Amino acid sequence: MSSPDTWSSEQLQSVVDNKTKPPGSLGRLEELGVQIAALQQTPSPRMHRCSLTIFAADHGIAASGVSAYPQAVTAQMVHNFLSGGAAANVFANTLGIQVTVVDAGVAGEAIAHPGLVSRRVAAGTANSATEPAMTGAQCADAMAAGREFGDRNDVDAQCFGEMGIGNTSAATLVLHKLLSMPLADIVGRGTGLDDAGLANKLDVLERAASRTGNALAPVDLLAEYGGFEMAMMAGAMLQATARGTLVIVDGFIATAAAAVVLSIEPSAKRAMVFAHQSAEHGHRAALDALSVRPLLDLGLRLGEGTGALLAWPLVQAAAAMMSDMASFDSAGISGPS
Amino acid sequence: MSSPDTWSSEQLQSVVDNKTKPPGSLGRLEELGVQIAALQQTPSPRMHRCSLTIFAADHGIAASGVSAYPQAVTAQMVHNFLSGGAAANVFANTLGIQVTVVDAGVAGEAIAHPGLVSRRVAAGTANSATEPAMTGAQCADAMAAGREFGDRNDVDAQCFGEMGIGNTSAATLVLHKLLSMPLADIVGRGTGLDDAGLANKLDVLERAASRTGNALAPVDLLAEYGGFEMAMMAGAMLQATARGTLVIVDGFIATAAAAVVLSIEPSAKRAMVFAHQSAEHGHRAALDALSVRPLLDLGLRLGEGTGALLAWPLVQAAAAMMSDMASFDSAGISGPS
Repeated sequence: MSSPDTWSSEQLQSVVDNKTKPPGSLGRLEELGVQIAALQQTPSPRMHRCSLTIFAADHGIAASGVSAYPQAVTAQMVHNFLSGGAAANVFANTLGIQVTVVDAGVAGEAIAHPGLVSRRVAAGTANSATEPAMTGAQCADAMAAGREFGDRNDVDAQCFGEMGIGNTSAATLVLHKLLSMPLADIVGRGTGLDDAGLANKLDVLERAASRTGNALAPVDLLAEYGGFEMAMMAGAMLQATARGTLVIVDGFIATAAAAVVLSIEPSAKRAMVFAHQSAEHGHRAALDALSVRPLLDLGLRLGEGTGALLAWPLVQAAAAMMSDMASFDSAGISGPS
Repeated sequence: MSSPDTWSSEQLQSVVDNKTKPPGSLGRLEELGVQIAALQQTPSPRMHRCSLTIFAADHGIAASGVSAYPQAVTAQMVHNFLSGGAAANVFANTLGIQVTVVDAGVAGEAIAHPGLVSRRVAAGTANSATEPAMTGAQCADAMAAGREFGDRNDVDAQCFGEMGIGNTSAATLVLHKLLSMPLADIVGRGTGLDDAGLANKLDVLERAASRTGNALAPVDLLAEYGGFEMAMMAGAMLQATARGTLVIVDGFIATAAAAVVLSIEPSAKRAMVFAHQSAEHGHRAALDALSVRPLLDLGLRLGEGTGALLAWPLVQAAAAMMSDMASFDSAGISGPS
């Protein structure tokens, strides 16, 4: 990238305003185009290739009954990703996006599969309801491993997805502590808890939250309450944004990882696009707390990076608007009367 | 298509519920997948190819000062479409969608260009503020010409776009008469009228509306107040939906054409997807009146089919979900505990 001062957002906005369309008529895509152009420091940004990396890990807190699904589903879904049968696979396939699946710390025996990238920190975290989810060293290892996945020079944008039974609980605790949002306001049904399940989840999270004070550093918070997939995703986001790759942030879990990243490195925001408003209860409040507006609102609550994938065509369109659309001058088109 | 009774929406919903994801977790894409599968009468629908046809025409009502831009812009934008510089071109290009540009009745001399398909009904409509925009024969000709563009067997979905200075006025009048919506509630700034321009536009539209009663048949309404591009688009939508091709409906103008189509043939709705909530003032009320929910809300107000194009990847993803995702059984994944 060239110097950050070469192209200001104002200069890039005037490039957009000279494109052959009424000013402002491409709405959110205009903001997105300016953001991408500012990130790449060119009025002709390039958004040709995107990748998806899915981090899978298990959560000790699942033992406290916070999910509608058994923990075994994490490993089962890893197999599903590897055989191409999950939603993330089929969406990525329609978009020509390559998928990498990472074992960040799935419970049980290590899965042996030639398509799986193993960066297992441990066979799942400890139960944060009663003890820290991971040690400081485990958290640092996970974040360092994540950086490797964010350090690619073959893509213009990266989507990061996750799989981990219990991880809406981990994300809720991280957001609660990091952004001072009341647990009751952000706890949600995850994959589909009923009312009794939701009440139990809130009890468990309150117990977990009461173990620590409110002044934990972001990385310590991740260690206390996060998951290996979240720590790895945070590392990947830190590295990708630092090198100027656009990060398309998925749903609730990814937003919690992004919130940690933004606490560590606020300037990462210029390289982040928030893909969608998830149906998970706390997501809207979390996006508001980060002062970001998602592109899509489709009632998704699956994770895996599915929402981020669906935002990629919008990112491509915004970049193409900047790079390929004619200007009023070049096309010889009249302005307003 | 096979018999409409072979696959019910309920049966197709149960196919979706057995995919490897929590029930409902793909939100709007689940509804969309069921709609597409019901339309094609198969649990494995195909959404491989999509086209964009842009109909351009001029409007006599432009002489009453209802647009921020001069009428010459319609022809200028046709040249821009033909040289690939418009927003619709660059979006279509990123999505691999072929664009057809049709002169439905642009003012002035006919444009001679090998890439332009000429179906000129006349060099623009008459001014509907004082007389019918077109004769009944002209409207019938435009609709018949449109049917030809909706009669393709090489695509699974079609986007229809438009260009025509003054056409938000025409669309507003059609929607006002067809759906009994007060003009003041649906008149908008189009390409960017200021307050005085908006007040004048409302005056002109009220004058136009007062010329006729409220019981016009849909086709007569199109002739009185519509445009050649709208009539051609309505014909194209009628034909495409009749043959079971999915029609991705763009913004305000396209919604007015779709409203006419639905008045003529209510069953066309099963083959229509409403792409986006436009920023044009009356669009939300029009979509509500049709009881449809758009997929995207990006503040677009450009037309040309740009919003429809951006919805195509969602349509593809929904079809791929139906056709390619594994089921709990096939993937050996546990259900809720």
